[in-house]
Amino acid sequence: MSAVSATQCQMRLSSSVGAAVSTLKGKHFISIDQLSNDELKGLLAASHQYKEIYSDKSKPLPRPLNGHSVSMIFQKRSTRTRVSTETGMSLLGGHALFLGPSDIQLGVNETMRDTASVLSRFNDIVLARVYAHADIIELAKYSSVPVINALSDLHHPLQTLADLMALQQHFGTDLTGKTVAWVGDGNNVLHDLMLGSVKMGMNVHIATPKGYEANADVLAKTIELAKENNCQVVTTNVAEEAVKGADVVVTDTWVSMGQEEEYAKRVKEFEGYQVNTELMGKANPGAVFLHCLPRHPEEVTDEVIYSDASLVFPEAENRMWTVMAVMAAQMGKV
Amino acid sequence: MSAVSATQCQMRLSSSVGAAVSTLKGKHFISIDQLSNDELKGLLAASHQYKEIYSDKSKPLPRPLNGHSVSMIFQKRSTRTRVSTETGMSLLGGHALFLGPSDIQLGVNETMRDTASVLSRFNDIVLARVYAHADIIELAKYSSVPVINALSDLHHPLQTLADLMALQQHFGTDLTGKTVAWVGDGNNVLHDLMLGSVKMGMNVHIATPKGYEANADVLAKTIELAKENNCQVVTTNVAEEAVKGADVVVTDTWVSMGQEEEYAKRVKEFEGYQVNTELMGKANPGAVFLHCLPRHPEEVTDEVIYSDASLVFPEAENRMWTVMAVMAAQMGKV
Amino acid sequence: MSAVSATQCQMRLSSSVGAAVSTLKGKHFISIDQLSNDELKGLLAASHQYKEIYSDKSKPLPRPLNGHSVSMIFQKRSTRTRVSTETGMSLLGGHALFLGPSDIQLGVNETMRDTASVLSRFNDIVLARVYAHADIIELAKYSSVPVINALSDLHHPLQTLADLMALQQHFGTDLTGKTVAWVGDGNNVLHDLMLGSVKMGMNVHIATPKGYEANADVLAKTIELAKENNCQVVTTNVAEEAVKGADVVVTDTWVSMGQEEEYAKRVKEFEGYQVNTELMGKANPGAVFLHCLPRHPEEVTDEVIYSDASLVFPEAENRMWTVMAVMAAQMGKV
Repeated sequence: MSAVSATQCQMRLSSSVGAAVSTLKGKHFISIDQLSNDELKGLLAASHQYKEIYSDKSKPLPRPLNGHSVSMIFQKRSTRTRVSTETGMSLLGGHALFLGPSDIQLGVNETMRDTASVLSRFNDIVLARVYAHADIIELAKYSSVPVINALSDLHHPLQTLADLMALQQHFGTDLTGKTVAWVGDGNNVLHDLMLGSVKMGMNVHIATPKGYEANADVLAKTIELAKENNCQVVTTNVAEEAVKGADVVVTDTWVSMGQEEEYAKRVKEFEGYQVNTELMGKANPGAVFLHCLPRHPEEVTDEVIYSDASLVFPEAENRMWTVMAVMAAQMGKV
Repeated sequence: MSAVSATQCQMRLSSSVGAAVSTLKGKHFISIDQLSNDELKGLLAASHQYKEIYSDKSKPLPRPLNGHSVSMIFQKRSTRTRVSTETGMSLLGGHALFLGPSDIQLGVNETMRDTASVLSRFNDIVLARVYAHADIIELAKYSSVPVINALSDLHHPLQTLADLMALQQHFGTDLTGKTVAWVGDGNNVLHDLMLGSVKMGMNVHIATPKGYEANADVLAKTIELAKENNCQVVTTNVAEEAVKGADVVVTDTWVSMGQEEEYAKRVKEFEGYQVNTELMGKANPGAVFLHCLPRHPEEVTDEVIYSDASLVFPEAENRMWTVMAVMAAQMGKV
Repeated sequence: MSAVSATQCQMRLSSSVGAAVSTLKGKHFISIDQLSNDELKGLLAASHQYKEIYSDKSKPLPRPLNGHSVSMIFQKRSTRTRVSTETGMSLLGGHALFLGPSDIQLGVNETMRDTASVLSRFNDIVLARVYAHADIIELAKYSSVPVINALSDLHHPLQTLADLMALQQHFGTDLTGKTVAWVGDGNNVLHDLMLGSVKMGMNVHIATPKGYEANADVLAKTIELAKENNCQVVTTNVAEEAVKGADVVVTDTWVSMGQEEEYAKRVKEFEGYQVNTELMGKANPGAVFLHCLPRHPEEVTDEVIYSDASLVFPEAENRMWTVMAVMAAQMGKV
């Protein structure tokens, strides 16, 4: 018998990349907070290398996750997370199973504990997009295989990896001293972005309307990490103040899935937070724009999102390269 | 490192087939209209060869689309299109992602433009089944990878390829001089069938009830092509007139998805359009029957659809071989 | 041309296993009843070998179903059946298509006959989870490829394979003389379990409330098979009586999908049927517990289901190894 050999399919990643993320083998991936600076940079390095290797389909493609599978549980619908993970897993030689809200009802038909115990028996990784962060914690507690948090109400670490990768593509690998300005809701996307930014040595400016501040614990942790990494964290309620001196301006929807009933109220309270050409003009020359998509016209104008300064489409693409790096690292296959 | 080599996986298609469809590399596949006669015949030749190669699973199966993926967007539910594409892509070594109406809401949560821009970053082909043809045009405009129209309200080119392949399987490769009779609604399926038939040198007889005529522009184009290809196009409101002299009788549902509220009205207005043994008896001896399925008893009797003259199940199977040819041609891998 | 060779990918299963199940090639898999004792034991032997081979992903993984596909039709939602089949097919090198209730409407939009005829053209196996057993029979009648019954209101043979495999893992391959006690609803899961148990030489004790007895025909068949295999079948309405002398206690939900409106009535009529520590204490020392999941607290306590005596999670895992054996046997690839 002779079949595709697992050893034949090792990646050609440089050995330093593999070493940097070897500590992630078998670990859950819940938030950026859990990563050392080296692990974070190692995941990004692996992501860049995956992009290089798998973008050229004329050459043989390695399949390091041949025979591996990931079950993807979605309590909330998602295009990017689902397509990036399913396609990325396929490139790595493995299989992704899409379990939508009507396929599996976490905590309704079956407890989180039993779901985790069962899926762990079938699949090598369990990825979940949930409402309550406590659900991810519960899944991770009872899963015997690595869990990936693909968005909870508290954290969205996969998005941060994609964002940082886009910034490295634009500014170069070393982001030290750059300044990221968040203009919008103090939400899960912000939480991991601010944690990740200071781990990369970047300053963080955060403008949120009153009542929409970031989670206090995550902010405290970010400030602590900023000190360790010699960078600054500034919070304000004025969009212009955050943007001043920024190399990167980031926003997200003001109204997330499940908050539609608050639409009118939120649009009113976010007045002055739209990222438009005028606001971008107050940032540093050459400043770039990020948004995790899907986007709505209230938070960013067409002029900005389709401008040369916008990195939103490479940023979206990076969701694939980065989740590939996370999965391969968890499987010890980088 | 050594993995499955792309060059190892080239198809054994005869070189003339590859040459005929090489012009389709990187192109959208929107309607039969866009194909030259040679491209159309080349796609059919490739389809026949795929059937031959992949039907015999005891031999090594080539995987020319290894590492490639197609996202399949369905605004309308579909069994045949979905299963044929997903299975066919898997045979070619690639991966198909099924994005159903509850997974992705084209133009609702996200604009067609942003959806196209994002999916183009993840997948090598975007296939979509939509209501409005304008949506396919919009997707194609903003997609940086080839788009496949898997049915719109104006065109259904994949069905035509399957139909023509079934006719070649029955009558032989050269269909010149045969006559195809459409008996039913002047819809998207008819549009591409009549365009494709005249490109193959066949005559076309079209019977539609008053008010259910084919699109005037597509009909005009068909008549123009018929002249170039030395064949006839006849339109009538009388089913028997169309069937007279026909080698092929084709119909489709009178009530498509989204038209259910018109059911009673339509059934009344299509009186006399049922394809039954009596109507088939007015066609040429040896005439065959086509229907894209699913079918309803009002438009065709059991006696006809389960008769020896019915090609409906090979026709359905051909949806797989033909979409494989289209995808491989778009990727330059035939 | 050189691609992954089918012959290269043969399993390393011992030749005796292959011989035992060679008679299943091309056959439908509808109920345990249809299997000879040797075929049943052969499928279990193949399942154990698959577990051994595919659990070690550091070695090359055979892909005997490369180029094969299974369409999975679900009239009823399911986590275990879907994830086990999809993952297992992927391990074998093939592709599984998930057709949920909103993707395909068996017998609504299209007849069972046409659905079977069409899917048979695309896929090598059709697996279906239906309400009415008659639907499986109809599918099998018109399908030109093997059908797998993945649960009907009368039979659930895949679950029985997983249960028997779990018992072999715990007690050893030879289960002769062991006693299985069913405590609960006389449903589809019981039907195949009792047929399979007596084929393995085990005694069967069945406690069901009045009005919830097993199907009379299946029971009569089981009693007949018990005589042939020198074992006992005992039926009672008293849970304690069934459990006495049992090495295995099994239950299932009292309220299956589609019976939710009967919830209060059923919970009342199943009083005394909860499997708890007290009831387990009346079984033989070392008795184990099985449940096909998902479970509800009314039929089994946390104390039992999370105890060392509970085999429910290996039992769930076995759904994958056993469906792999069934599919490979149907394809003649064990």
